[in-house]
Amino acid sequence: MENLENRTTEQIRRLIRTGKFMRPTTGLCDKYLQANLVIISQKSAFDFLLFCHRNPKPCPILDVTDVGSFEPKMVAPGADLRTDLPLYNIFQNGELLEKVRDIRQYWRDDFVAFLIGCSFSFEAAMIEANLPVRHIEENKNVPMYISNIPCETAGSFSGDLVVSMRPFTPIQAIKAVEITSKFPKAHGAPIHFGDPTKIGISNINKPDFGDQVSIKDEEIPVFWACGVTPQLAIKNSGVNFAITHAPGYMFITDIKA
Amino acid sequence: MENLENRTTEQIRRLIRTGKFMRPTTGLCDKYLQANLVIISQKSAFDFLLFCHRNPKPCPILDVTDVGSFEPKMVAPGADLRTDLPLYNIFQNGELLEKVRDIRQYWRDDFVAFLIGCSFSFEAAMIEANLPVRHIEENKNVPMYISNIPCETAGSFSGDLVVSMRPFTPIQAIKAVEITSKFPKAHGAPIHFGDPTKIGISNINKPDFGDQVSIKDEEIPVFWACGVTPQLAIKNSGVNFAITHAPGYMFITDIKA
Repeated sequence: MENLENRTTEQIRRLIRTGKFMRPTTGLCDKYLQANLVIISQKSAFDFLLFCHRNPKPCPILDVTDVGSFEPKMVAPGADLRTDLPLYNIFQNGELLEKVRDIRQYWRDDFVAFLIGCSFSFEAAMIEANLPVRHIEENKNVPMYISNIPCETAGSFSGDLVVSMRPFTPIQAIKAVEITSKFPKAHGAPIHFGDPTKIGISNINKPDFGDQVSIKDEEIPVFWACGVTPQLAIKNSGVNFAITHAPGYMFITDIKA
Repeated sequence: MENLENRTTEQIRRLIRTGKFMRPTTGLCDKYLQANLVIISQKSAFDFLLFCHRNPKPCPILDVTDVGSFEPKMVAPGADLRTDLPLYNIFQNGELLEKVRDIRQYWRDDFVAFLIGCSFSFEAAMIEANLPVRHIEENKNVPMYISNIPCETAGSFSGDLVVSMRPFTPIQAIKAVEITSKFPKAHGAPIHFGDPTKIGISNINKPDFGDQVSIKDEEIPVFWACGVTPQLAIKNSGVNFAITHAPGYMFITDIKA
């Protein structure tokens, strides 16, 4: 990883585009906002944009492309959303069809792409404040869980909030709240800490997405709203075709966190 | 006006609905957010929501109704957007067709209503800080101008920024910046002060909307982004039908400013 540290966002995207970087993007270009990706047809785009607007905590919008365009002009001019993420999920009729490394063969002229803020964006600030970010320490993907907290519905899009988890001691958790509340475009402050069952998570050691990480004796789990939430809403909506990033394999923008 | 001061937002909306209040809403329910209204068909709704998202300064979104619904559930449950504003503009093919006090006869099942923040929302805070708000002092509508600052385009929606103006001395203007920067949902900090020609306004005494107000010798005009901006974008788009509030005749929400 060390030789990637001084690469620009454009250089990292080129490594991803040419298949030379295939891992989760946590820790990459850590001064820049990372983004969740959702691609759907123009027909569903209003409902989806409204879903994001009504659920700003899990779905802070960073950019929306013009219809048919795969270039996110506001956050990364020149980038190509069809190739510049390491892994994509393809959904058909609400079901996960396959995971692919390139979506050029799937691209359509009626597609609209949404980029949504990601909690990876505040992890550099955590590390700078000497907070241990467990999944980075353990070289894993962040653990993510489907909670029982309902989102606001918009048209056909509805579902429960997906959350990411980082374990901290209470004093670290307080610091983490202070830091992340300054990142509204990256989900902001946590939505819960402590007892996972209070938000419908029955087994903290079995995340629904990403990897399990160790939680030390004096630590409690702290939960943030997560940009995988729209993937659940897409499944629930049953839209006939959608493409997203694979959880943890994000798009790296040119916007400073 | 004095007997309106202690009315609730719901009571004021009922006065408006029953034709008992027909003036601009500046100064009304001054602890609550007021809102600009845009109603368009579902077909144009994605482009318009994207226009708002790309131009958050003139178009901070407060609420968007479900398709066909005239109730703004998030900001004023129970209100009726067809009757609860004192005056509406009806646009046909981008041209202002007429001004009406009730739009029930125009309502369609494919309509979506957008409520957008309004600078009236920060005027109470200005008055509390002993800043003179000229158009309120002179019992007029706020003066509004079409600037030459282009908005970000989204689909068929494009156009220049409309601004509202309040005259202040420099020290008052500084205070006004401090105050309004705390109201991002009501256009936030100003976009310009001083020479009006710098933003394409040739005659400060001839506003494009609202009323002319007096500017004293030691005062300079201070300009804020204005929620009339989307009306210009609607004219430019030539959408075949749209309804908005008439400038200055706003919707009063239940949300504390």
